[in-house]
Amino acid sequence: MPIRSDPAPAAIAPGARGNDALDQADHPASEVLRFGPDQPLRLDSGRQIDHLQIAYQTYGTLNADRSNAILICHALTGDQHVASRHPVTGKPGWWSDMVGSGKPIDTDRYFVICSNVVGSCMGTTGPASTNPATGEPYGLDLPVITIRDMVRAQVKLIDHFGIETLFSVAGGSMGGMQVLQWASTYPERVFSALPIAAGAKHSSQNIAFHEVGRQAVMADPEWRGGRYFREGTSPKKGLAVARMAAHITYLSDDALHRKFGRNLQDRDKPTFGFDADFQIESYLRHQGMTFVDRFDANSYLYLTRAMDYFDLAADFDGRLANAFKGTRTRFCVVSFTSDWLFPTVESKAVVRALNAAAASVSFVEIETDRGHDAFLLDEPELFATIRGFLSSAAHARGIV
Amino acid sequence: MPIRSDPAPAAIAPGARGNDALDQADHPASEVLRFGPDQPLRLDSGRQIDHLQIAYQTYGTLNADRSNAILICHALTGDQHVASRHPVTGKPGWWSDMVGSGKPIDTDRYFVICSNVVGSCMGTTGPASTNPATGEPYGLDLPVITIRDMVRAQVKLIDHFGIETLFSVAGGSMGGMQVLQWASTYPERVFSALPIAAGAKHSSQNIAFHEVGRQAVMADPEWRGGRYFREGTSPKKGLAVARMAAHITYLSDDALHRKFGRNLQDRDKPTFGFDADFQIESYLRHQGMTFVDRFDANSYLYLTRAMDYFDLAADFDGRLANAFKGTRTRFCVVSFTSDWLFPTVESKAVVRALNAAAASVSFVEIETDRGHDAFLLDEPELFATIRGFLSSAAHARGIV
Repeated sequence: MPIRSDPAPAAIAPGARGNDALDQADHPASEVLRFGPDQPLRLDSGRQIDHLQIAYQTYGTLNADRSNAILICHALTGDQHVASRHPVTGKPGWWSDMVGSGKPIDTDRYFVICSNVVGSCMGTTGPASTNPATGEPYGLDLPVITIRDMVRAQVKLIDHFGIETLFSVAGGSMGGMQVLQWASTYPERVFSALPIAAGAKHSSQNIAFHEVGRQAVMADPEWRGGRYFREGTSPKKGLAVARMAAHITYLSDDALHRKFGRNLQDRDKPTFGFDADFQIESYLRHQGMTFVDRFDANSYLYLTRAMDYFDLAADFDGRLANAFKGTRTRFCVVSFTSDWLFPTVESKAVVRALNAAAASVSFVEIETDRGHDAFLLDEPELFATIRGFLSSAAHARGIV
Repeated sequence: MPIRSDPAPAAIAPGARGNDALDQADHPASEVLRFGPDQPLRLDSGRQIDHLQIAYQTYGTLNADRSNAILICHALTGDQHVASRHPVTGKPGWWSDMVGSGKPIDTDRYFVICSNVVGSCMGTTGPASTNPATGEPYGLDLPVITIRDMVRAQVKLIDHFGIETLFSVAGGSMGGMQVLQWASTYPERVFSALPIAAGAKHSSQNIAFHEVGRQAVMADPEWRGGRYFREGTSPKKGLAVARMAAHITYLSDDALHRKFGRNLQDRDKPTFGFDADFQIESYLRHQGMTFVDRFDANSYLYLTRAMDYFDLAADFDGRLANAFKGTRTRFCVVSFTSDWLFPTVESKAVVRALNAAAASVSFVEIETDRGHDAFLLDEPELFATIRGFLSSAAHARGIV
């Protein structure tokens, strides 16, 4: 079906757009899969993407009966480089503690696939990608994307591998939303599912924080209605503010207190000025500044929008249990005590719905003060939970 | 002592700066008190304000022995118009449910004073005020202000009235910080104190949210290093984003869910675009847009900074109890269950310190889902608490 599957390019072309990150949009440092207009990606909006590119990474080996594949779904600002060095920042992959030889998601045993989501900027079609119809980046001409659209693109990738049923689909935050969407829309193709620090809908407060971030980007005069590449501008300041606001929601009050308290940055007394006097201020400014070097502002709009639109029960007259009717997938739902972006109550709503659907489900609430970001961190209980759940599911599935 | 106390001007001069709100900075629609260089306001930064103007409102009548005065301290974006129509928005005063004839803070019984804080923009000296030395608005040439500096200015006003001891000092949020500062620094001048939805310090998370707001303002190219009046620009977009982010912290997840949920705004289906699809989005945009018409961007920087710097225990080697050593003030500390900006734990820390100082203190945690903003709203239990506390204190003070 796919037109072509290219190996990773040996070297990335020099920053034609003055930004290495955005070269990744068309020429990612990972595998890619391309589809032409004969195989468009049909979207929830009623529109379609005629030239779809999917950038992905794999780890481990697909076994002979193709039964050991785990699809990992990344979060808002994540990417396909789960356990590989990030091509722009040079940092280790975002889940390299979790995925690898001998790790909880053990690449000696499982074949791990992760693709960049549609709407992002690391090689799968998104607003920074070149629109073949115009030769210019899509910008806001790209149709709005939903979580289900992301999953539809992943289905094309899974089909490319000839995988009928995924052994597992796993992910945190926006990744967890994709996990739930997979399990609901393609139940027969998901043997087990691991939604972490997620929920079946985005809350009003979460939409509010996203809207602040979008307004920060769009208020930046360099955003230019989304046409900043063409105009040679860059809405970095707005995107940095958006990232700073979001970053607060990824942590917890306790973690901030423990990590920074009211400590001053490299000084004994306040400066009585507007520099970053407190450590928390420098930390946030740093988070904002480094983010803009690796992420596209329009992608930030698209992906936050996709999360806002997510409401799995809405397609089932508000009855979440019906989203999982008759499911035979084994679920392991994980939440963190200090996560206030996707608090435990959201995970429990999923668990209740799964119980009502008579699904096989285990639920673990992990005690930690590290907030939402805990799913990305070295959390021994999370590692043990995932290792155990997958081993047990592998046994049931006959994976050796 | 004061040089002059002017009555409210009959009419406000037409918007010389193209913004009615900012005419208020020099020519407020309220009483004003002015001090010359012989009576400077000395500041925590070591600097001073040579030409201090204080804008204030009063309600009720000061009794013969000047024992019935209540000072109300306003919050970050509040002002002196406690129970008077706002001169810019035309809306009722921000605490008009609380203050007035027959109301919990009963102006038939008490003499109520409220002054605009130093650093604000409604008539007390702030960055939008004209610097007599240059004939231009101060902008960032105004020294940075602290909560204690605000209180020092209020002391000048109280002295002007010849009031030795205030019957009560009351306020919520940043107003509550001022209340605690008053009680600590001038214990003999405060008969009773009512800090509401406040704490003895600003937490790391709160500093983080403020820093996001400041960065949003300063990222706006129209901010021009704070010299936007001179340059004929206005950092409205940045200030609106700052207000939007802050506004989320004033509410609660539950309140947002109850009020907006995931309801769409005037439509049945999502638009698959970046307009305000959800009601919460329109609401926040509205909050941002209306705020910039009544508030000065630089004032927002100064006042958030003052709150960030607040740490009452820091002056007492970290022992908060020592901030209230030997106090004879009667305290009533109030918090709200759903307030996550100043959660109950912050109020309890104050109460514990007061207990350790053997102070007279009552503590009320009010059950509500309305978040931090509850102190501004029609909350019957808050009204009953304040009415009862003041009546009992009035009896002890011999106020009829």
